[in-house]
Amino acid sequence: MHIPPARRFSPYLPFGENKESAWYGKDILTVKQFGVDDLNYIFGVANEMRGMVKRVGTFDLLKGKILANLFYEPSTRTSSSFTSAMERLGGSVIPINEVKYSSVSKGESLADTVRTLECYADVIVLRHPEVGSAALAAKYARKPVINAGDGIGEHPTQALLDTFTIFAELGSADGLTVTMLGDLKYGRTVHSLARLLSLFNVKINYVSPDILRMPQEVMDEVSEKGIPQQVCDRLEDVLPQTDVLYVTRVQKERFEDPANYELVRHQFVVNPEIMKLAKSEMIVMHPLPRVGEISMDFDEDPRAAYFRQMEYGLHVRMALLAMVLGKA
Amino acid sequence: MHIPPARRFSPYLPFGENKESAWYGKDILTVKQFGVDDLNYIFGVANEMRGMVKRVGTFDLLKGKILANLFYEPSTRTSSSFTSAMERLGGSVIPINEVKYSSVSKGESLADTVRTLECYADVIVLRHPEVGSAALAAKYARKPVINAGDGIGEHPTQALLDTFTIFAELGSADGLTVTMLGDLKYGRTVHSLARLLSLFNVKINYVSPDILRMPQEVMDEVSEKGIPQQVCDRLEDVLPQTDVLYVTRVQKERFEDPANYELVRHQFVVNPEIMKLAKSEMIVMHPLPRVGEISMDFDEDPRAAYFRQMEYGLHVRMALLAMVLGKA
Amino acid sequence: MHIPPARRFSPYLPFGENKESAWYGKDILTVKQFGVDDLNYIFGVANEMRGMVKRVGTFDLLKGKILANLFYEPSTRTSSSFTSAMERLGGSVIPINEVKYSSVSKGESLADTVRTLECYADVIVLRHPEVGSAALAAKYARKPVINAGDGIGEHPTQALLDTFTIFAELGSADGLTVTMLGDLKYGRTVHSLARLLSLFNVKINYVSPDILRMPQEVMDEVSEKGIPQQVCDRLEDVLPQTDVLYVTRVQKERFEDPANYELVRHQFVVNPEIMKLAKSEMIVMHPLPRVGEISMDFDEDPRAAYFRQMEYGLHVRMALLAMVLGKA
Repeated sequence: MHIPPARRFSPYLPFGENKESAWYGKDILTVKQFGVDDLNYIFGVANEMRGMVKRVGTFDLLKGKILANLFYEPSTRTSSSFTSAMERLGGSVIPINEVKYSSVSKGESLADTVRTLECYADVIVLRHPEVGSAALAAKYARKPVINAGDGIGEHPTQALLDTFTIFAELGSADGLTVTMLGDLKYGRTVHSLARLLSLFNVKINYVSPDILRMPQEVMDEVSEKGIPQQVCDRLEDVLPQTDVLYVTRVQKERFEDPANYELVRHQFVVNPEIMKLAKSEMIVMHPLPRVGEISMDFDEDPRAAYFRQMEYGLHVRMALLAMVLGKA
Repeated sequence: MHIPPARRFSPYLPFGENKESAWYGKDILTVKQFGVDDLNYIFGVANEMRGMVKRVGTFDLLKGKILANLFYEPSTRTSSSFTSAMERLGGSVIPINEVKYSSVSKGESLADTVRTLECYADVIVLRHPEVGSAALAAKYARKPVINAGDGIGEHPTQALLDTFTIFAELGSADGLTVTMLGDLKYGRTVHSLARLLSLFNVKINYVSPDILRMPQEVMDEVSEKGIPQQVCDRLEDVLPQTDVLYVTRVQKERFEDPANYELVRHQFVVNPEIMKLAKSEMIVMHPLPRVGEISMDFDEDPRAAYFRQMEYGLHVRMALLAMVLGKA
Repeated sequence: MHIPPARRFSPYLPFGENKESAWYGKDILTVKQFGVDDLNYIFGVANEMRGMVKRVGTFDLLKGKILANLFYEPSTRTSSSFTSAMERLGGSVIPINEVKYSSVSKGESLADTVRTLECYADVIVLRHPEVGSAALAAKYARKPVINAGDGIGEHPTQALLDTFTIFAELGSADGLTVTMLGDLKYGRTVHSLARLLSLFNVKINYVSPDILRMPQEVMDEVSEKGIPQQVCDRLEDVLPQTDVLYVTRVQKERFEDPANYELVRHQFVVNPEIMKLAKSEMIVMHPLPRVGEISMDFDEDPRAAYFRQMEYGLHVRMALLAMVLGKA
C-alpha cells in the first residue's frame, strides 16, 4: 500500500471530522508518515479506547475481524500487546510466531507470505529483522500492514505509544524537556521518539556513554525542525530540569571490554537516590525489558511511568487497529 | 471413527436435502471417501461460505465451538487457514504448534494425545509426518478428526480446495484439460488431485523431469476411471490446450547432481513469455509456497489463480468445519 | 497478592452464600490455601460448569476477559486445558509458549514480565520450572495469578481436579481407600493430592519401588491430620480394598541401572488381568501422559477414569477462572 504523506489532514479541520475514513485501509510503517494532526487524532482515539477499557474491559468494535500477528523474531511484549488490543476490540488473532520453521524456511518470499495471509486475515502486524521489510510487505498486500519493528529500522507503534504516554501523563509535549538516557546509538526507540517529538516544541538532552551516542543523522533531522538539543555526560547535570526521563537498556554485547560495560552500567542507573534531584512532577519511561537500568526500589514512586506506558501501548494499538479497519 | 464410504448420498436426492446430518461427527481423512455428490455438497456449502465472507466477513455459526489445531510439523499456511476458518465462523482455536516439546516428547502415544484434546475441543485438525496417523487418531477419537496432511500420505482438504478452485473459476471440471507440471513423484497434492479429478470427465497431462514422473500406481487408478492421460516432456506441447495448469515446486534435494536441478528448474518456469501460448480463458494454480516455478511478473495476469486458490481454501475449510460440527 | 489462608470461609455459612466475592482477585498458588469448605465451593462451581458444558458447550460468562497463558516450560495438556476453559467461558487467550526466545532471554525478571502482561490481560496462568515462582509473580501482580506448576513445587489445579474427579465419580472422598502407585518420590501430583485428601476421612496406601517412595515429609504432614497410611511393596496386597487407584509415570532417568527400570516398569503395570483383583465400583486415575503404566487394553473398562479426569480438569479450571474474575 502507498504510504500516506505526513500532515495529510488540514490543520484547520476541526478535530475528528470524518478523518476516520482517511485511515481506512492505510498502512502504519514509519513515524515519518505522521504530522501533528495525525497524532492528535490517534491520541484522541487512543484516549477513547483507554476510557472504554477502564469502564467495560472490551467491546465488539472489531468483532469478526481477524489479525494475522506475523512475528519473524520473538517479541512477547509487542506480540501480546497487539493480541490483547485485537481481543479487547472483539476481534480474533492468528498467531504466527514460529515463522522460521515454516514456509519461509522452504524459501518463500515475504511478498508471497503476506499475500497468503491476507487471504485469511483483515490486517497484518509484521515484526521482521530486516530494514524495509514492512514497506515491502505493504507494497504487495491489499490489506493494511502495521510495522511492529523492522530490524534497526522503525518501530512506529512504539514511538506512538511513547508519545501518547507523555501526552496522557503530562497533558502535552509542548514546553517539555525530554532527557534520553542509555544506549542512544542502537536504540531504535529513541531515534523514532526524537523524530516524533521534533513535531512539538520540546528540548532534548542526550546522556549516554561515549560509544553509544545519538547518531548525528538523527540529531541533524531533529535540528532542522528547530529543536534545541544538548549532549551531556552526566545525568545529574540535566535531571533537575527534566520533565520526561526516557531510559533505555545498555546491552553488554555492545562493549569490546566487559570492564567498560560494568563501569557504564553502574554510572547510569536510575534509583531513588539520584531521583531526589528530579522534579516531583515528571515521569520516568522505559520501553522495557530492563536489566537493571532502573532499580526495582524505584517502581513504587509515582513518577515511575514504565508500567503505565505498557497500558498506553495497548490503547494506542487498539486505536490503530480500529482506524485502519475503518472503525474509529 | 468409521470412514464413510464414497458416494453415500443417492445422486437422485435433491441437493441439500437433509444431507447435513450425514456429515455430523464424521472424519475427513482421505479423498477416497468423496464421491461426486459429496463434492457437489461440499462445494455448495463452500460457495455459501464464500458469499458470507464477502458480504459480512464472519458470522457466529460455530460460536462456542473449539478447534484443537494439532500440528506435529509446522505449516503456517494450513494452520493459519484452519484458524481463520474457525474464527470466521465465530469459533475458538487451541493452537498446538510446538508438539515436539511437550507430552509427546515424554513418549505419549498419538491415541492418548487425541483422547486428551477431545476433552477440551469439539473438533481436531491434525498434521502429522507419518502416513496413517490421521486414520489412527480418528480410530480413537470420539470427536471428528480432519486430516491436514499425514506425511507422504494424504492431504484431503488441499485436494478439495484445489478442485473447488477449478469449479469456482471455470464452472465445472467436466470437459477440461488439466496439465500438472513439476515434481509429480513426491508431490502429495498432485496425487490426491488426480484421484479426485478422475471422478469427472477430464483429460490430464503430466509434464515433469524424468526422475519426477507421476507414479504408475496413481496413473493406473486414474486410468481405471477411464480418464485419458498423457505424459509429456515439454510444457509447450500441451499448454495451448490446457484449461488448468497446476504447477508444483521442484525441490533441490530430490536431485543427486545439482547441475540437473538447475537445468530442470529453468526448463519448467511459468512466465509471461511462455504463457503467450496458453488460452486467455484458463487458470494457473500452485499449492504454494513457490520458489521460482512461477515468475512474479506473471502474478498480475488474470489467469494467475494461486492467491485466489488460498481464499477458496478458507471457504472449503469453513464448509468442512461447519459440516462435521453439524451446522452446515 | 496475598495468599488467602485456608479455611477462610466459616464452615457454618450455608453453601454458596455470597462466597463468590471472597475469591474475586485472589491467587491460586498452593493446595495449602484450601480448606474443606473451599473445596466444596470450588467443586460446586465446577459441577455447574460441567452441566453447562454438557448442555450448551460454552457461555459468555467471561466474555471480554483475557487470560495470559504464560508457559516457561511446555505443557500441551495444561496449557490447552486452560485455553479451552477460558474459551468455553467466552473469554480470550494470549498464548505465550515460547518464553525462552523472548524478553526473558534478554534478562527480564519474572516480576517485570508479569507486571507487563497484566497490562494486557485480566488473569495470568503461570507455568515455571522454579519452585516459588508463582508466589513471586503473585507478589508483584495486581491481577490474579494461577499456579499451573512451579517445578517440583506445587501444581494446585492438578490436585484440585484429581480430588474433584474422586468426588464426581464416587460422591465423596470420605471413607475411601486411595492407593498411589508408581513414582511417589518425584511425582508432584501425588504429594499435592495426599495433602488435599488429608482434609477428608481417607486411608492412603503407597505402592512404589524402594527408591521412589513417598517422602517422609509428606507422610508426616498427612499423619498429623490423623490419616492412616500404609507403605506396600505389592499392588496385589491392597488392590482389593482400593476405591481409587492413582497411577503415576515411572521415568527411566530416575534409575542408575536401566535393568532396574525395566524390572520396575513391568512390576507395576495396571492391566485387565491384575484389575480382576479390584472392586467393580472403583476408579483408576492417572495425571497423564502415560508410557505403559496402564495398558491400553484396560481403556474400555468403566473403571478407567483417566480420560474423564481430563474433562473434570476443564471444569475445575473453568470454575477457578470464573471465581478469581468475580463471576462465579
